[in-house]
Amino acid sequence: MTTIKDSVHDHIEVEGAAEALLDTPEMQRLRRIKQLGTVQLVYPSANHTRFEHSLGVYHLASRALSHLGIEGDAAAHVEAAALLHDVGHGPYSHNIEDVTHRHTGKYHDDVAGLVTNGTIGETLEEHGLDPTRVADLVAGDGEFGQLVSGELDVDRMDYLVRDAHHTGVPYGTIDHERLIRELAFVDGELVLAEGNVQTAESLLLARALMNPTVYQHHVARISKAMLRRASERLLDEPDIDAHELRRMDDYDLLVALRLDPSTSEFAERLATRNLYKRAVWAEIPDVPDSVIDDDHEAVAEYERTIADEAGVPHESVILDVPPRPSMTESSSRVMVNGEIRQLERESPLVQALRTAQEQQWRLGVYAPSGEADRVGRAAAEVLGLDIDGALVAEVRRNLNTTLDEFE
Amino acid sequence: MTTIKDSVHDHIEVEGAAEALLDTPEMQRLRRIKQLGTVQLVYPSANHTRFEHSLGVYHLASRALSHLGIEGDAAAHVEAAALLHDVGHGPYSHNIEDVTHRHTGKYHDDVAGLVTNGTIGETLEEHGLDPTRVADLVAGDGEFGQLVSGELDVDRMDYLVRDAHHTGVPYGTIDHERLIRELAFVDGELVLAEGNVQTAESLLLARALMNPTVYQHHVARISKAMLRRASERLLDEPDIDAHELRRMDDYDLLVALRLDPSTSEFAERLATRNLYKRAVWAEIPDVPDSVIDDDHEAVAEYERTIADEAGVPHESVILDVPPRPSMTESSSRVMVNGEIRQLERESPLVQALRTAQEQQWRLGVYAPSGEADRVGRAAAEVLGLDIDGALVAEVRRNLNTTLDEFE
Amino acid sequence: MTTIKDSVHDHIEVEGAAEALLDTPEMQRLRRIKQLGTVQLVYPSANHTRFEHSLGVYHLASRALSHLGIEGDAAAHVEAAALLHDVGHGPYSHNIEDVTHRHTGKYHDDVAGLVTNGTIGETLEEHGLDPTRVADLVAGDGEFGQLVSGELDVDRMDYLVRDAHHTGVPYGTIDHERLIRELAFVDGELVLAEGNVQTAESLLLARALMNPTVYQHHVARISKAMLRRASERLLDEPDIDAHELRRMDDYDLLVALRLDPSTSEFAERLATRNLYKRAVWAEIPDVPDSVIDDDHEAVAEYERTIADEAGVPHESVILDVPPRPSMTESSSRVMVNGEIRQLERESPLVQALRTAQEQQWRLGVYAPSGEADRVGRAAAEVLGLDIDGALVAEVRRNLNTTLDEFE
Amino acid sequence: MTTIKDSVHDHIEVEGAAEALLDTPEMQRLRRIKQLGTVQLVYPSANHTRFEHSLGVYHLASRALSHLGIEGDAAAHVEAAALLHDVGHGPYSHNIEDVTHRHTGKYHDDVAGLVTNGTIGETLEEHGLDPTRVADLVAGDGEFGQLVSGELDVDRMDYLVRDAHHTGVPYGTIDHERLIRELAFVDGELVLAEGNVQTAESLLLARALMNPTVYQHHVARISKAMLRRASERLLDEPDIDAHELRRMDDYDLLVALRLDPSTSEFAERLATRNLYKRAVWAEIPDVPDSVIDDDHEAVAEYERTIADEAGVPHESVILDVPPRPSMTESSSRVMVNGEIRQLERESPLVQALRTAQEQQWRLGVYAPSGEADRVGRAAAEVLGLDIDGALVAEVRRNLNTTLDEFE
Repeated sequence: MTTIKDSVHDHIEVEGAAEALLDTPEMQRLRRIKQLGTVQLVYPSANHTRFEHSLGVYHLASRALSHLGIEGDAAAHVEAAALLHDVGHGPYSHNIEDVTHRHTGKYHDDVAGLVTNGTIGETLEEHGLDPTRVADLVAGDGEFGQLVSGELDVDRMDYLVRDAHHTGVPYGTIDHERLIRELAFVDGELVLAEGNVQTAESLLLARALMNPTVYQHHVARISKAMLRRASERLLDEPDIDAHELRRMDDYDLLVALRLDPSTSEFAERLATRNLYKRAVWAEIPDVPDSVIDDDHEAVAEYERTIADEAGVPHESVILDVPPRPSMTESSSRVMVNGEIRQLERESPLVQALRTAQEQQWRLGVYAPSGEADRVGRAAAEVLGLDIDGALVAEVRRNLNTTLDEFE
Repeated sequence: MTTIKDSVHDHIEVEGAAEALLDTPEMQRLRRIKQLGTVQLVYPSANHTRFEHSLGVYHLASRALSHLGIEGDAAAHVEAAALLHDVGHGPYSHNIEDVTHRHTGKYHDDVAGLVTNGTIGETLEEHGLDPTRVADLVAGDGEFGQLVSGELDVDRMDYLVRDAHHTGVPYGTIDHERLIRELAFVDGELVLAEGNVQTAESLLLARALMNPTVYQHHVARISKAMLRRASERLLDEPDIDAHELRRMDDYDLLVALRLDPSTSEFAERLATRNLYKRAVWAEIPDVPDSVIDDDHEAVAEYERTIADEAGVPHESVILDVPPRPSMTESSSRVMVNGEIRQLERESPLVQALRTAQEQQWRLGVYAPSGEADRVGRAAAEVLGLDIDGALVAEVRRNLNTTLDEFE
Repeated sequence: MTTIKDSVHDHIEVEGAAEALLDTPEMQRLRRIKQLGTVQLVYPSANHTRFEHSLGVYHLASRALSHLGIEGDAAAHVEAAALLHDVGHGPYSHNIEDVTHRHTGKYHDDVAGLVTNGTIGETLEEHGLDPTRVADLVAGDGEFGQLVSGELDVDRMDYLVRDAHHTGVPYGTIDHERLIRELAFVDGELVLAEGNVQTAESLLLARALMNPTVYQHHVARISKAMLRRASERLLDEPDIDAHELRRMDDYDLLVALRLDPSTSEFAERLATRNLYKRAVWAEIPDVPDSVIDDDHEAVAEYERTIADEAGVPHESVILDVPPRPSMTESSSRVMVNGEIRQLERESPLVQALRTAQEQQWRLGVYAPSGEADRVGRAAAEVLGLDIDGALVAEVRRNLNTTLDEFE
Repeated sequence: MTTIKDSVHDHIEVEGAAEALLDTPEMQRLRRIKQLGTVQLVYPSANHTRFEHSLGVYHLASRALSHLGIEGDAAAHVEAAALLHDVGHGPYSHNIEDVTHRHTGKYHDDVAGLVTNGTIGETLEEHGLDPTRVADLVAGDGEFGQLVSGELDVDRMDYLVRDAHHTGVPYGTIDHERLIRELAFVDGELVLAEGNVQTAESLLLARALMNPTVYQHHVARISKAMLRRASERLLDEPDIDAHELRRMDDYDLLVALRLDPSTSEFAERLATRNLYKRAVWAEIPDVPDSVIDDDHEAVAEYERTIADEAGVPHESVILDVPPRPSMTESSSRVMVNGEIRQLERESPLVQALRTAQEQQWRLGVYAPSGEADRVGRAAAEVLGLDIDGALVAEVRRNLNTTLDEFE
């Protein structure tokens, strides 16, 4: 058994398969992937990594399993899945995920490949665990998969507290021990026990406050959009492909961007925090779920048109449309008067938070500071933004979304 | 200058009038008044006092004044008011406030008397401060009075963080330094500067989560109701009056309750945590603001009727109806696009929280554990509660409210 | 099972005998005894109680037992002893202990009486525990008694961290989880496992830094000496005896002191922090262990002589000689190269700390501020203090010591 | 003015020259240099960087200057120096410092070059500051230089608390605010005011406990020795020189090590935490200060001889001899009875800590796990280590030291 000191959960005990998994190159690589990617350019202390987060999720999973009375083989599979749940993340965590997704397919298929093959698959088998079963748990499948990936998963319990500890923003400081103690399985569903509507709300509210302050801070979004653009350029090069890029760590990617002439300026800007500015920051009006679809080409076309209209190089314009806000936690299940109820049925806060997040939903156009004014005017014209920042319907219909969740 | 070490704000510097005020018997008495009264029976660590809270409020006021660029005479008056804001509190803080109010008049008149007379008034004058002006600031009057008592006052910034620190419930952990740095005066109104709708929401949400978990925890409410009942009995005695009771500290009151034969059982029960149980815990349906009026006699009459119906001594029945939930913070003012706006206009959360609090609003009937069943049945009949716990209109109209705010 | 929220250890689970013991009047009384007595007059936030400390010690004992693999009956007895270890404390914790000791006999005999008789004894027996065995564990007897009272006991692990949390002085912030994980029993002795000389030193150093800053702060010592004097006067009254005084809580004692004419001035001074000042604060030179013996009468005689010499009332002079500093932790046992070794053999810090504590050892003479100068001169003459503050041998030989440990 | 959120000091205000300096590429580079280098392989959460540490040192310098009443031009120079004090650090902080030192000359000359030339020099001049004066302050010269680099500098106040926060090891949690409030200049010397012998001791003790647990943890030392060896190999390549290496960040260096065939194995081992093991871990007996001199070639010669003796490749043997322990804090100055005194004259702890550190001083020989036994036996023979791990005098005389301080 190994005991590891963690700045959030203090001593974490790791044993068996989990201890062996820690030594795989795939897990060690997570030491070099920052948990919050470019958020570090807003909050200088936010340098924590996917590695320590993975340990934290493993730890909370262990505690939850112990409270739920789940032991032996089932527990070992869930613990392995908790530890491995982020092993497929590319460099800079979620920051360039949709770039690599476009080329490599879905995250969960990719993780499944990593978990069932190579060193990880072997390590699991050596410890009597079934790699496919672990991969399914990572994907949130089955009753116990809800603990790893779901509305009440231990993943979000760890990242909220950890991100609060490292950014210095207290909003994420939930009572994770209370949450874990109140978990129960009822009819195969993971629920919070009777008397915990407010406990469930507290989780929802923590994320609602961390979102605009940390995760969606505009400087984090700008630098992320720059990183995404640079990564796209890198993939245009013949000698690098998306699968390779996805297995890089933060170190590899930054150096690769520095060395490639087509991306060295972006690399330099990111390294010296010489970022693009907001040329447009506009509210997105109420649109049907269907109209914002994942059309990368449409976005690129808009960018080119805006650049031409403004008379600036194409690289000087970045159009950034985050996906429609979602609230996974809204469907958390809580016991009320002996029945399983979805949180949004019980709590008037859910709908209010949904409304608040829609109101905060912003489209951005970014450009180098010297060109931001010109680009702003051109973008307003091309995108048909009126003075209130509304997008005309035709535009909305063709906008790309980016995967923006912090899980 | 004195430097005092505080468990929440670390070093607090006190000088001038404030330093001298600390030495008055009136301020020293606050060392023996618990901040959260009977909440300590739920959270054993919650033994912090009005004294350290007063120091914290003074400290935050100083920081706010410094950020706002307010100095000299004006600042000294505000700082004195911040330090003195709780000096009129009776024993067990808010717990028996409405009992003493009934006999002694309003809190703010009483505080004004304390501040403008006696040792405090003299100390203020010795340091060139105007006691009446300080008393007005304590009451929240005038532009700067908003800092001491208002929607964005430093009082609530201190108590949320302090109560979280001492109960162990993290929900109150707001970013008070951020709040203070964003305060501004615009057209004589205390507002949060542009870009702080979420900052304002965070304050609201912290209190919304602390409320049911800490301040309105049912065990705290039961013990508080018992303390209130015992204090009423004590006031029936010829040799004690409400003004005297109000100047007691927690120590005096508990011993007085022990020594008086009519209250010694309550004292014993509180001291050994042998509390009444909930006989009825019912939702209060939507009622107009006007109908719940402060009618102490009506409540006492109901209690007697229920006791008779249940065949138990009158002392065995306590009817507890908290006042209609209010949300002071809902009218916090935030700058949005250059205009002063009330938070509830900007944030969909305000209305949702209001709804949530109405839903959590509960009427309680308490009785000794052996009699709780009988009392419960009698109370349901007398109060006309149907199976859903609804009160009939006639009852609602005559119910007393208790002052229940934590300011 | 009950889960209790603690500001230091978060959730504490209590079950079985421990849960039942919590409800006894003897344990509930500890809610009204401050952990640090008059230290609260130096650190206003230090209002934590023996009750929450007892819960914390119980919690750490449970964790230690679990790490040591001790279960069942043995564990239940240790846990009960941990919870009960302070149940015999009088009001204001250690502050007036030596006053009551003089009249009532040793602490441990008294605790043994409390634990084996009355409600506590009955509760233990109802849960199948042997009261005598629990009392022995409280006294530190037997192998497992070392966990409750000894050089490496969980008592000091809790109080250091708790006192740091509540005073705001960080020096006590030890790594209690590390300490607990490294405990082992070797040949019937409680030791720290191999590689933990520094872990043991950290415990020693934490107490060495807390001592002068918190526990022996001169204002805490003055107020404690005043409280001791007042309690002695109270015991001169015919209607109160030491056994009764010892069962009081802080509330009872303060009110009793207020009501008795011979002590009301002390009570008033303590309540308004209008304390005596230091008239003499002198180093005590190196003396053989034998010469400072427990002679209460000799001290009283000196006080009277000084008062007469200074021409002030006898009540205006308090002579305070703390006991020779001891360092329980110096004999902690640590495994080094497979052998059990005492810390002081392994660590040069032990002897250095001992020297440092001897140097800090101070005798105090206290008097009301207006009389301090006169009393100081008289005391120097009577006590034969030369200009360096040295005591002549004759004096030293007759000085009383006070029990001053914080256990 | 910019306000930056820090996980340790909360809000940090930066303005004027300091704000402009933050935007230089030289300062931004510190975002990619871990504060504790390879310590992260022991404590996974220790990913904090020189950038946030520099901000923290700037912040504490500002507070100290404000308490000392130093303003205007003098304060601006000190603040700039505090922010810049680490700008010359190479990749992995102190880990490969002695490698680059050997080739590039002293750290302080190098920093002086950075501060007086290029973007930093220009920025300083634009804000009316004298770059040479700033460089001198960074070197600790002059009265105010003591605040930046000296026994009581704000550098160590920040790193102790920050390293504690990020490793989770509480020993570094000093009371930095107390330290800063007690600073004073007396006769041109930076001292702690009267009554602070224990305050000074607390700083010393914090570092004494962090040293073996964090800074000198054997796994950190092994990985550091491996990184040092790899960096030496890299410098053998014709296309890289020490000045260039020194300006790299952690990202550049790791990727450079990966790409170079002669170092890729070390890079791989470090990246996957597949580290060398201890073949020898021996006490170094008492030797005169003069005998351990900085002879890199002698160490290399020993390594080759050991490798030959063991029949393993030269790269499989690393000999690691840390420099003789020093205790900068021992000469901290404290006011005692109106005189400036060095701490070691006042505190018996200083000499005891010195003794303790000599006892903990260890020489290590490291090798791949499969070869560690063979290498251990060969090293013992070559180095003439007897069974007690003593080095023969001839060996001692020729051993290299490594710069190992954490400043």
